[in-house]
This record gives sequence, C-alpha cells and structure tokens, in this order.
Amino acid sequence: MTDPIKKGFASDNNSGVHPNVLKAFSEVNKGHTVAYGDDPYTEIAVNKFKELLGDVEVFFVFNGTSANVLSIKAATNSFNAVICAGSAHINVDECGAPEKFCGCKLLSVETDDGKLTVEKIKKHMHGFGFEHHSQPKVISITQCTELGTIYSVSEIKNIAEYAHMHDMILHMDGARISNAAAYLNVSLKEMITETGVDILSFGGTKNGMMFGEAVIFFKKELAENFKYIRKQSMQLFSKMRFISAQFNAIFENDLYLKSAKHANEMAKILAERVRDIKEVKLTQKVESNCVFAIIPEKYIQELQEHFSFYVWNHETSEVRWVTSFDTTIEDIDRFCNLLIKVLE
Amino acid sequence: MTDPIKKGFASDNNSGVHPNVLKAFSEVNKGHTVAYGDDPYTEIAVNKFKELLGDVEVFFVFNGTSANVLSIKAATNSFNAVICAGSAHINVDECGAPEKFCGCKLLSVETDDGKLTVEKIKKHMHGFGFEHHSQPKVISITQCTELGTIYSVSEIKNIAEYAHMHDMILHMDGARISNAAAYLNVSLKEMITETGVDILSFGGTKNGMMFGEAVIFFKKELAENFKYIRKQSMQLFSKMRFISAQFNAIFENDLYLKSAKHANEMAKILAERVRDIKEVKLTQKVESNCVFAIIPEKYIQELQEHFSFYVWNHETSEVRWVTSFDTTIEDIDRFCNLLIKVLE
Amino acid sequence: MTDPIKKGFASDNNSGVHPNVLKAFSEVNKGHTVAYGDDPYTEIAVNKFKELLGDVEVFFVFNGTSANVLSIKAATNSFNAVICAGSAHINVDECGAPEKFCGCKLLSVETDDGKLTVEKIKKHMHGFGFEHHSQPKVISITQCTELGTIYSVSEIKNIAEYAHMHDMILHMDGARISNAAAYLNVSLKEMITETGVDILSFGGTKNGMMFGEAVIFFKKELAENFKYIRKQSMQLFSKMRFISAQFNAIFENDLYLKSAKHANEMAKILAERVRDIKEVKLTQKVESNCVFAIIPEKYIQELQEHFSFYVWNHETSEVRWVTSFDTTIEDIDRFCNLLIKVLE
Amino acid sequence: MTDPIKKGFASDNNSGVHPNVLKAFSEVNKGHTVAYGDDPYTEIAVNKFKELLGDVEVFFVFNGTSANVLSIKAATNSFNAVICAGSAHINVDECGAPEKFCGCKLLSVETDDGKLTVEKIKKHMHGFGFEHHSQPKVISITQCTELGTIYSVSEIKNIAEYAHMHDMILHMDGARISNAAAYLNVSLKEMITETGVDILSFGGTKNGMMFGEAVIFFKKELAENFKYIRKQSMQLFSKMRFISAQFNAIFENDLYLKSAKHANEMAKILAERVRDIKEVKLTQKVESNCVFAIIPEKYIQELQEHFSFYVWNHETSEVRWVTSFDTTIEDIDRFCNLLIKVLE
Repeated sequence: MTDPIKKGFASDNNSGVHPNVLKAFSEVNKGHTVAYGDDPYTEIAVNKFKELLGDVEVFFVFNGTSANVLSIKAATNSFNAVICAGSAHINVDECGAPEKFCGCKLLSVETDDGKLTVEKIKKHMHGFGFEHHSQPKVISITQCTELGTIYSVSEIKNIAEYAHMHDMILHMDGARISNAAAYLNVSLKEMITETGVDILSFGGTKNGMMFGEAVIFFKKELAENFKYIRKQSMQLFSKMRFISAQFNAIFENDLYLKSAKHANEMAKILAERVRDIKEVKLTQKVESNCVFAIIPEKYIQELQEHFSFYVWNHETSEVRWVTSFDTTIEDIDRFCNLLIKVLE
Repeated sequence: MTDPIKKGFASDNNSGVHPNVLKAFSEVNKGHTVAYGDDPYTEIAVNKFKELLGDVEVFFVFNGTSANVLSIKAATNSFNAVICAGSAHINVDECGAPEKFCGCKLLSVETDDGKLTVEKIKKHMHGFGFEHHSQPKVISITQCTELGTIYSVSEIKNIAEYAHMHDMILHMDGARISNAAAYLNVSLKEMITETGVDILSFGGTKNGMMFGEAVIFFKKELAENFKYIRKQSMQLFSKMRFISAQFNAIFENDLYLKSAKHANEMAKILAERVRDIKEVKLTQKVESNCVFAIIPEKYIQELQEHFSFYVWNHETSEVRWVTSFDTTIEDIDRFCNLLIKVLE
Repeated sequence: MTDPIKKGFASDNNSGVHPNVLKAFSEVNKGHTVAYGDDPYTEIAVNKFKELLGDVEVFFVFNGTSANVLSIKAATNSFNAVICAGSAHINVDECGAPEKFCGCKLLSVETDDGKLTVEKIKKHMHGFGFEHHSQPKVISITQCTELGTIYSVSEIKNIAEYAHMHDMILHMDGARISNAAAYLNVSLKEMITETGVDILSFGGTKNGMMFGEAVIFFKKELAENFKYIRKQSMQLFSKMRFISAQFNAIFENDLYLKSAKHANEMAKILAERVRDIKEVKLTQKVESNCVFAIIPEKYIQELQEHFSFYVWNHETSEVRWVTSFDTTIEDIDRFCNLLIKVLE
Repeated sequence: MTDPIKKGFASDNNSGVHPNVLKAFSEVNKGHTVAYGDDPYTEIAVNKFKELLGDVEVFFVFNGTSANVLSIKAATNSFNAVICAGSAHINVDECGAPEKFCGCKLLSVETDDGKLTVEKIKKHMHGFGFEHHSQPKVISITQCTELGTIYSVSEIKNIAEYAHMHDMILHMDGARISNAAAYLNVSLKEMITETGVDILSFGGTKNGMMFGEAVIFFKKELAENFKYIRKQSMQLFSKMRFISAQFNAIFENDLYLKSAKHANEMAKILAERVRDIKEVKLTQKVESNCVFAIIPEKYIQELQEHFSFYVWNHETSEVRWVTSFDTTIEDIDRFCNLLIKVLE
C-alpha cells in the first residue's frame, strides 16, 4: 500500500481536491433539487462560463476523456477524420474512445513539442470529396499540450483561420487550460473565444476539482443535439449540482487562475533548480506545470521509491514531473535534494 | 429558480448526499495517491465488496447508465441480444446507450409489475444459431424494478437457472439494490451471489452517495478485459479514491442498509396514508421506496407546485412518488396533508 | 447435397437470375470503365430511376440489408429511434445491423398483418425533447410487408403525413416493391413519390436480379453525405456497371413489372388451389407473391422433402410459400398435388 | 460519357469480368437452391479453398473492404489496435470502415515500399496491459502491397513469428494475392498457410471476377462467430451460389494463376519499355501488376485523355499504371507509343 500522505510529481490528477471545492459540496448539499442540471447552482455555473467566454453553450460531463470525445462527436459524422498531434491525449491516452464512440479516423502528426502548425496539418488535408477517404472535419489542439508547451494567441488564431477556411472545426482540449491562461497572462476570451476556437474541453479535475469538465460550444449550432449525445454516451450526471458547485468554487475569486499560477510557478522553480544538475537534461520549454527531462535510466527506480513520477519515454529515459495546486516549495526542495543526492 | 431547500418525491437522485459521504471526502483528501484506482482507499472498498459478495471482481464507474451498459458490453459481442422488461431502465431511459455502445439489440417484454419471469423470457428464446437473428446472450433484471417491486430470492434463482441452462448471462441492474436487500431482509450474498447472478450493477447514487456505481462480476472471466472497456467507454475516474471513499462511507456500520430501510419505511408510511384517500389508487405493491398511484389529472399541476414528482404515465394519469434516505416523516406529513387538501 | 434443379417455395432469393440479366452482363463486359459508378451504364440506370420516380438521388448497394440500414443511417443520428412493425425485416432479420451500424434504437409495434398504422405508431410517439429517451426520427414500412400484404396508396399517404407532421422521415423497405406496384396497378410515382415517401430501398434481388438494390432519396438533402456512408459501410461496389446493367435489364420493357405480376399470379393460383384443402388454413390475404398458411405440423417434414419452404411460426405451425419470377404453373400443380396427397 | 471499350491502366477493377466467370453464371443458373450458402456450388468452392490452403474456414463476402474489415472484427475487441503500413488500403482507402465497424484504432507505420518489417512494427509495440492504450492485437500486411511490391515467404514468416510471440494475429489483405503467388512461384500453402498467416482476405474482383472475396481463417477458432459478424455487417449474400460459381471458375485449370501471371507479365513489359524513356523514373520494383513512376506533371493530362490512370502522389507527380487479366500487348504498345510521343 502506498503512503497516502506523500505528494509526488506523477500527475495533477494524483493530487487531492482543493478545500474550497469540498466546502462547496457542503453548501449545496441542502434539500432536493431537480436532477440532471435544471438546478440553480448549474445556472450560476453556466452563467459564469458565459461571463468568462461570451455567448456559449455549456455542458458538464464527468471527465476529460468524455469532454474530448463528445466534442468530436458533436462536430462529426462517422466518416470524418480528426487531425491532431501524435502526442495528443485523444490519440494515445483514450484507449480508442474517439474511434469507438465517433467512428472517426484520427490523423496524427508527429511534433517535437506537441504543437500543431498549419504546415504540419497540411499533410492530412487532401482527399476532400473523395469517398474512399475519411473526410477531415476537426482539428484538435491541446492547450497546454501534453508536453507542457503552450500555444500563443496568434498560433491558435492561425490554426483557427486555416480550419475555418476549409470548413473545419477547431477543438481545443483544455484539460490544463487554466495553466495556459496563467502563463499567457491573457483572458480566456482573448485566448479562446477571440482566436476562433469552436469547441473547448474546459478542464477542472487537474486544477483542484474532484471531477467534472465542461464542453463549451462557441459555434452554438454544434450544440443543438448535444444533450442527447451526452446522455447516450453515459455522461449525464444525475446530481449535477455537485459538478456545478465545484466550478462555482474554482471561479470564486479566480481560484482557478491562482491554483494554475501556483502550479506553473512550482514547475518553473523545479526546472530552475534541476537545470544545473549535470545528469539532468531538460527536453521541453517549461511553460506550464510540467517538466520534461532526460535522466540516466539507472537512477529512476531509486527516485521513484521516494517520489512518484512517470517515465515518458523508456527508450530515451525521458521522465515527466508534474506540479499541482497543492505542490509546496518544500516538496520541490525535498525532491531536488534527492535528485542532487542520487544523481551527483 | 427552484428553491433548493425543498424536498420532494421526484427521485432519489434529486436528494443530496449523506453527511458521512462528505465527511469521507475530507478524510481521504490528503496528499497524493496513485490515480485510476491503484490506491489504498480503493483496495479497502474492493475488499469490502468481496466480504459482502464473495469472490468477485469489482470496478467503479461514474453512474448507473454506464454500470449497466458496460456490464452488457462485457458479456456480449455486437451480434447478441439482451432480454429485459419493457420498463427496464436500459430499455427506456438510456437514450439508446446500450445499442450504441454494445451494438446489441434489446428484446423487451411487457410486464405489469416490471418483473421478468421465465415464461415471459421464452417469447424471445428462439433463433439460436440462425445468423439472421441477434443471438440472445444476456437476461437483464432490475432489483428493485422501475416499478418499485422486488424479485424474491427464488424468483431470481429461477431466472438464473434458466439463463445458465441456455448458456446466457444474468445481469442485475441494482441501482436500488440496497432497498431490495432491506425489504427482503436477506444478505446480499443470499440475494445475489447464491442465486446465480453473473454481473451486478451496484448502485450508490440513489442511496446517499454523490456519484459512483460498481460493476461486480461473479463470473470472473467476464471481467478479463473490463479495464479496457471501462477506459474506452470514458468511465475511468482519475481521482478514484473519491468514489472508493464514498463506498467505504456507506458500508461503514451498514449505513447503506440503514438508509435504504429508512427510505422504504417512508414509502410504506406514505402508501398507508394515501391508500384511504378516495381519489388515489395505488397501482403497484409498495415494496421499496417508490409509490405508484393514479390520481385525477386535474390536480397534478397544483400538487407539483408544492412537491416535485413525475407523471409516470400521462395517459392513465399515473404518478410516481419516490422517497429517499433523507425523507422525513414531516415531509410525508406535509405531502399527505396537501394531498388531502387538494384531492378531497 | 440438394438437387440444384429443383424449384421450391422457400424464398424469392432461392430462385436464380432472369436470363435477360445474364445477357446484360455480357453486353457491358467490354473493355474498361471507370470503377465505383462513374460509368455510362450507371448513368443510364440512374436516369431510368429518375424517369420512374421523379427528381431523386440514386445509389446502388449490394443487398437489401444494407439498403435498409444505410437508409436509416442517412436519416438519423445515433440517439434517434426507428419505428417499425415487429415483423419488419430490419427488426428481426438483420442480426442487429441497424443497431450496430446506426447506433439507433428500434421501436417495434406488433401487428397482425405486418402493416403499421398511425394509430399503432402513436404508441411510440413520446419523449420528444427528453434526453433520456431515444428520439423517434424514422418510420419504416415494408411494401410488400413480410406477411405478403400491401399498403394502399392512401394508407402510405396517411403515414407519410403523420411522419412529416412530426418532422420525421418515412422510409420504405421495398425489397418486393415491384410486387406491390403490380398488385396495386399504380405507377411507382403514384405509390411512392406522390404519397410522401422520403427514402426507398428498391429491391432487385428478389425480382430476378443476381444482386443489387437501390437506395432512393426523394428528400434529396438526406443524400448529401451518402457516398461516404456507403463507402464506410463497405457497400461501394467497384465494378458498378454490373449492378447498373442488371437494373437496365429489368427496366427494359418493364420486365420488373412483368416478373412481379407473374409471381403474384402464381401465388394467387396457389392460394386458390389450397384454399379448399381441408387441413390448410390461409392466414393472410394473398396480395403479393407470398402465401401464409397453417397446416398440421406432422405433415411439414414430408412436404419439405419434396419442396423447400420455411416454417414461419413453429408454435402455430404456420408456413410460408413464396413464388418467384420463374415459378411455373407446373410447379404449382406438382406442389398442390403433393399437398392433396399428403394432407387429405 | 467515357468510351466503354477503351482499356486503360487505372485499376484492375476497371477491367471487366473474365468470360469463364460469365459462363459459370449460366451454368449454375438452374432452378432453385438454398440461399445464403448452403448450396452445392458453395460446397465445391469451399472444398477447393481447403485443397489449396489446408484445414481452413471459408466465408464469402461482397468486396475487399468488407473482407478486410470483417477479418479485423473477428480478431479484435473494440479496445484493440491494428498495426499496418501507412499505405495500407485499410488505412487510407476505406473511409474509416475499420474504425467504424470494429471500434479499433489503426496504428500505421510509414514505409517506402509498402512493406512492414518487424523493426517497423516495434514502434507500436508498447502499452500492453496499460488500460489507457489501445491494445495491439492484429498486424495486417498486404500481399501484394499497394505499391506493387511483394513480401517474400521468409519476410512473411518473420512477421508471423513476431506476431504470435506477442499473442497477436497476422492478417493478410490479399486483394491481389494471386499476383503474389504468380510472382513468387510458390504454392498458396507455402506462401500463406505455412508462413503462419492467421486470416486472409482472398481477392477475386481484381483478378477477373465480377464481385466476391473470401475471408479465410487458418486459426479456426477466430471463425466461431463469423457467420453472425458477416450478417450483421450487411455482407451475407442471398444468392450465394453466384459468388461460389465465380471462384469455381477461376480455380478451374488454375485460371486465377494464369490471369495473374499474365497481368504481372504485362506490367513487367510495360516497365521495361518505359524504363528508357528519359522523362520517366520508376519508383518501385515492378513485382506484380503495378508500375509506379514519376513523370513530368505537365504531360499527365494529355496522357489521361487517351488512357485512364491515377496520379498516386500529386506533390511528386508520381503515377500508377495497373495492368489486368485482359491487358494485351497491343494495349502496352499503344500506351508506350503515346508516352514516347508525348514525353520525348
């Protein structure tokens, strides 16, 4: 049995739940409300999303996998294809859920930093109108990417324009969207609404919530049948107020931004500290709450005995360290001390 | 906006969460744990299920829809059929999720009381080996049924024997399984394990949990690939400890049974009280926490202005009143007084 | 090994191919043509369909199962439901293909004669807008029905009007559409185009063709993406000219009508002859090329040793006798003599 | 309208049907036979396959797309992945049919010559047992490849051994399998049965048949439920004798081999002739009936006005010329003369 008190750098979903979220549960746990979302707490949460993002349609689902897959389902027919980075969560971490539930083909592009560009997307932009070929319909980008990097506002804009020029939909997997907002220091509206994103998976779980993500439609006609899609995909939560309350908690006083800023800052400090360790080679820019590094393979096991983290690439001995809203400077200290002790 | 304090009789998922469940959240919200279920709280919960049900495989999912659909997926190939009551939740309340995700056909049987019998099942037991015909593979029963009725131990046994004689799987939708255990006054083992149920959807949400259901495999070979099915169906919870903690909370001191007994008792009292109201005609035996009654159509709206409940059948003006772990005798009093005032 | 020369009454797809169809193969088997339908023979066939049916979109597929399933796929999203007769081929004879490929739920209605009516359809017309409920979108009728009966023009019109009033699509499974046209003695336009059918599966295989059916869209916007649906469903024929040539052959000099009239006539004679046999009880009106009758169970095996036919309902000992374009009066004679000999 | 007499080099499915195939139609077009495959002609065809390939299970389907997709469906659950070459027909030419019907993920590998190797396959051989990752289960190779190249017997053996070592299934897309047998000059048994192929799509349409392919199971337990899969996937042919008769025709006196040898020979001659044309650069070994060449983009249109063929890669101006059982030396002469005239 692992020690439940221990904090590590495995993932921001290994962390617990922000205390404000737990408090919010208690506050809404009064009497009965209509199930499935027609309750006052959900109304507040949806309105908050509209305040942050503009004239959007908002639907809550249980987790990030479903936020992404249902977004794609809403924008596609089964003969369509989705263009994404090879490292995209929908491509490598959903056990084929997009293919199974949407019937679509995923067309992936290899990248060094997890970021699509128009140039890279073009590889798959052919076969339109040719019935033998899955018809590209969605471009899906991840903000922050799985490699911790972040699209600039203009990079998103470029891809959105390209997508729309080809009558395609731009989906953003925002499992760590708050970390991106914190890093870019722009409003959600500037980063998402105004760049031309059509559908957003807005993540809560990796930023201090217990569970719950939002599917946000900027192109509102895509939401027309979404309530049926959500139900048929087994993602309609009966006691909906308890997702809504969590969003309300993290939006209060911009907690979502503060938590993300904190996690980013912790990652930055961690990166600064390890940069000078001889045996550590950082492999990606540290823009969010993820640090990627190559370390000698022989030390990994000993380190993992004290702090949990994932090996990202066994062949290159690349590891990933993820910070969280609850990572403390003491956690960083302890981990860096261990790194120095073991590696030097 | 509805008044969130108000309690009604619409559904046991309109109720809130048992205080012990919220307390359990706080207790496990310490440090980091491995995500996706390899944590100590989940180990405890799984062991508790084994204690209650025997040598089983246990998997947690978000909600009842998925517990049922994934159970079926584990037991079928796409060319199979599932035999169920016409009133079964999988047949009328999942927006076609079983068909979509499993590819299977549902073969329903009309019943008066929501209960399948071997005699009724036989209607669909043909076409075996005939490739034009979806091959029956699963019989799915609901305990308690959607009409609040409860299968006796021997009724379940009969169906299980019949299923196994035909190389079929018996699935039990146990969204309200605790209410059945409370009513029958037998152990879960006697009601489920020893009758021959092969897969059980064990419900938590309708009995004081916030979210989370368990898929329990008695026929363990059916669980072999279930972890992939759960992930691909978008039902793998990252912060799993927070479902496990809820089960641990409701299992502590048999809270799950106490809550269910209480809800049953409230329904019984409600039924007793309304039985004598001239304009009310009970339509089903009241064995669990549901009361079905026909009342004059013209009074329904006025009643619903004070207490929420569903019209079950608009043609016959049949309504459903559901009690919950948090229904109080005062709620019953108030509601009955209103009924008397309006109807008499 | 069965004797391949023998003719029976099992099904109109046990028959062979009309000689004109084989001749047509030879005629188009010259040189190379563009594959997948962009060839001159297909152009002629499509134009013939337009001449017969008006301003329609026409797509060829391999068989009747796919004509029906792809019609439904074109008109639905996965959360939709299809209303059909309990005896409909899509409901009982496709091994769940509609559910698997479309993800939809089939809502069936029991009938005595295989025919839907508005009254019967109404049973399933509820739950619109309610996300828990598969949304009814298609009404599918079979002309001729699986029981050999035939909708009148006004019966079709009634259902079409009702469907359109509810923003639904009327699909007609026309596996034996030519037999219906022959019986009703109206043009295809009067029976189909002008009654309001939206999508038609036009059958060829049961009427002297080797293989090949047409999906015909009267509501042309439903055809917009059909070429992708056809390909993804594995129904795009490479050497398309060889389906087209068959349609051209059966349309030449109204062979399709003549063949159907002949088969109908043979069934009528058969029915007349057996009507007076004491032990035979006809169970359906004989309007097309199918005769349904109850005969004593004990004689069935002996009869089948000489003429193949299916037992339709083992419980009631009801059998089905189907005539075909190649059934001769001598076949009828021989069969009736046998019936008389065995049964009397 | 294109001239139907003209022969070109677009594809072996632009060709017509071998005269022996048409003759076979006439021969079996006598009387009635049982539909769906329980007829004597099918028995003969299946036995011939057993003679050629050993103790196998044999199922006929309409076309190559379905032979491949159904093979995969028989070997996988929806959470599995299929490893194939980037150029594989299942990856680029089925409009996503494998994803839609099997729910699986396709993991493709880029190759220069269309051929997988163990080394290339390894890229995708990870994540076993990890529920977030589609589980690799099938390796699919194409013989001859889409680039006209051919695996040697030992190359197939190597991949089969590797597949089986990892408890995976080796599928061979044999749309042009006869061309490979002709080239390698080995028996089908040596090339397929004895190398360890588990499932084969045996192609007929590209080798003189009108329609019809066979799915052959060497690992017979995979065939257990295939009849239901075939029906549910809309690929069960009612008048089955007319596929069987075609196979019987091409197996008679090894016509399948003779046709393939002829096509190969024509391609070889074509390649020899064009090799010396200055502006033509062959890009692949010419081992089967396909010739790939880069020619100046500006000449393509003029050439296509006289002979149909496809541009394989618009960026590099690479074209594909395919010969067929009915290509004559005069066709080659005419085409080469044109090439010389236009290009030099």
